[in-house]
Amino acid sequence: MSSRGNILVMQSGGCTPVINRSLYGVVSQALSTDEFCSIFGAIHGVEGLLSGNIVDLGRVSRTELNRISRTPGAALGSTRQKLNVSDIEPILEQLRARNIRSLFTIGGNDSAETGHSLHLAANNAGYELAVVNVPKTIDNDLTETDHCPGYGSAARFIALATFGAGQDARSMGRAAPITIIEVMGRDTGWLPAAAALVKRNAQDAPHIICTPELPLNEDHFYQRIEEAYKNYGFAVAVIAENTRGPNGVLGEQEKPWFVDDFGHGYYDGPARYLASRVSQRLKVRARDEKPGTIQRSFVSAISSSDAKEAEMVGRAAVTAALDGHSDVIVTLVRDTGRQYKCTVGLAPLDKVAGLVRQIPAEFLDADNLFVTRQFLDYARPLVGRLPIAPGGLPSA
Amino acid sequence: MSSRGNILVMQSGGCTPVINRSLYGVVSQALSTDEFCSIFGAIHGVEGLLSGNIVDLGRVSRTELNRISRTPGAALGSTRQKLNVSDIEPILEQLRARNIRSLFTIGGNDSAETGHSLHLAANNAGYELAVVNVPKTIDNDLTETDHCPGYGSAARFIALATFGAGQDARSMGRAAPITIIEVMGRDTGWLPAAAALVKRNAQDAPHIICTPELPLNEDHFYQRIEEAYKNYGFAVAVIAENTRGPNGVLGEQEKPWFVDDFGHGYYDGPARYLASRVSQRLKVRARDEKPGTIQRSFVSAISSSDAKEAEMVGRAAVTAALDGHSDVIVTLVRDTGRQYKCTVGLAPLDKVAGLVRQIPAEFLDADNLFVTRQFLDYARPLVGRLPIAPGGLPSA
Repeated sequence: MSSRGNILVMQSGGCTPVINRSLYGVVSQALSTDEFCSIFGAIHGVEGLLSGNIVDLGRVSRTELNRISRTPGAALGSTRQKLNVSDIEPILEQLRARNIRSLFTIGGNDSAETGHSLHLAANNAGYELAVVNVPKTIDNDLTETDHCPGYGSAARFIALATFGAGQDARSMGRAAPITIIEVMGRDTGWLPAAAALVKRNAQDAPHIICTPELPLNEDHFYQRIEEAYKNYGFAVAVIAENTRGPNGVLGEQEKPWFVDDFGHGYYDGPARYLASRVSQRLKVRARDEKPGTIQRSFVSAISSSDAKEAEMVGRAAVTAALDGHSDVIVTLVRDTGRQYKCTVGLAPLDKVAGLVRQIPAEFLDADNLFVTRQFLDYARPLVGRLPIAPGGLPSA
Repeated sequence: MSSRGNILVMQSGGCTPVINRSLYGVVSQALSTDEFCSIFGAIHGVEGLLSGNIVDLGRVSRTELNRISRTPGAALGSTRQKLNVSDIEPILEQLRARNIRSLFTIGGNDSAETGHSLHLAANNAGYELAVVNVPKTIDNDLTETDHCPGYGSAARFIALATFGAGQDARSMGRAAPITIIEVMGRDTGWLPAAAALVKRNAQDAPHIICTPELPLNEDHFYQRIEEAYKNYGFAVAVIAENTRGPNGVLGEQEKPWFVDDFGHGYYDGPARYLASRVSQRLKVRARDEKPGTIQRSFVSAISSSDAKEAEMVGRAAVTAALDGHSDVIVTLVRDTGRQYKCTVGLAPLDKVAGLVRQIPAEFLDADNLFVTRQFLDYARPLVGRLPIAPGGLPSA
């Protein structure tokens, strides 16, 4: 036992299927170094830290820790609470009271903001504190890192879901030929883009991918759907939940379909909206599907390389703190060699905080509402091995 | 080569993740017996049979056949076309022209009707034809069989999806505490019922299961959701797509939200409808999720016992035809022993045709909007091994 004091871990923002694998990485690495006294966890992130709702992760059994590492959702509970200036002093008090000298948050760009603020506040107060963030988001939209732990597994889910739903729509023929799948991603389309990873030829699903990076021209969309339907007898589009038209909300949805007591208006999700219009135009059944949180929590779709990297960034955060780093986030750095390999790096929190990395232009094919080969080359190693669709059948 | 003539295989109705494993079973068994000359497949079922759109499955390579066996969707294409009386003579002509003496349809209760009609017609015409159906439906609603191939894998998807979405809702806490998942099943709730298979205690998701077998009292639903939310900080309901109120469509949805050019009205799916009402009542975010065809086509959720049985019923159909059976469907018969084991049986097509097996009363707990332990004992062996959720964390 040492002078390094105690550790506190938090989880924050939307969950991923491997966010607990990072937690496992932090805890295992901390236990293995024997440099820390206690390993605390804050329940629901800053909410637990403020209210003193804190657990002792050092007392969790090995079996239970292994089980947690394979469980989706955030084992400590997550939070979407933004840090207020008035929260900082009470948080420092909690840290002092428990002699917490290393703070790890497994989170995204909001958590980077929180981490940076706490680092500055501790510095100003003369309180020695290492703040090291562990990257996590299925949205894959953090700057400074090649990709984000959590993305590979959610992307694998979307690739497999599109493969399956595509084979289904193709099989059903005119009984139900159109499927529109609505996929998560707050400001970016990295996840819908992954829908193309099993596709081998023009006939395979998906035929259209819509991302928030490119405002959608609805006529273009209907035209592409109609083309695919005419050529192949079915059509599949995968669209981001925040797909927007040039003027914001899609199409004729001027009024919300439902207004709650707070006055918040609810609009149709874009899949439902577009499916109803396609159905009306082509006079065929168009399905809309929305896997929702299932896409970020499905254990049988975890990518093995994603799981490994999620643990690696957790372990690297502990090493970074021991090496004297603070105000940093662990990053993934891709080797330039032909064989896929990633190592870890570090980036300053303020170069990540509040920023969003959109899909670069060379990854998107705006004319065809699709992604490019460069994107597929980038994403393929992140999702693990995928099935290969069979070819055509010999006619009799 | 023999006097048994040729074989024709068809696939029909909604797809399952293992419908092609049954196709593989039929083709492999037929190839291994060396009793048949050609193994034909009709594209899109009776549609292909009527139009002569027929493939030669005997010429498909082993590699390709293996690949097909692991691919979701119906490799031959499916159909929802009902057989008209006027179709029967042209179909018999096609069969005669190709000397098809064994007809296998991988399908559900509609296909049983088609098979029975074709058997009678061939009999009347003095044309020797063995009609043997291979059971298949994620709905699990065929009579005469313990369960239906396809159900175990779709049920596994729903169990894992509910586990994941449940852990997610629990983690997010007050940021997004309510999730309502809408699950397939035309007339029965076997699939939403499977959502309970990972649950270990009252706190775990799901807290409510709604099936078409029991008309839903909405107040009861809201009350149960509120209870779970108050007790555990989150609530998850899994509901059948055909969940209905005592008077049909749920609640206040008197008018469809959209009417297509044929005059078909579209109502909100029950998940979306209930989520909006829950959100309004509890003043919290309630998500609605709809995995749609993804739940019946997700290769990484295939249950190994389901896949094995799907192949077994395909092989058994060929054996039954060779043994001189016709006008029958292969069934699964569960051993009475403690260890799960199923063997195959046969049932007359007219005891399956057009019939629906609803969930028996002893499998449903109407008071608690849930399923019983008897149901869980019935379903558990069908879905394969499931993850175990971790317990609570020790407070500091």
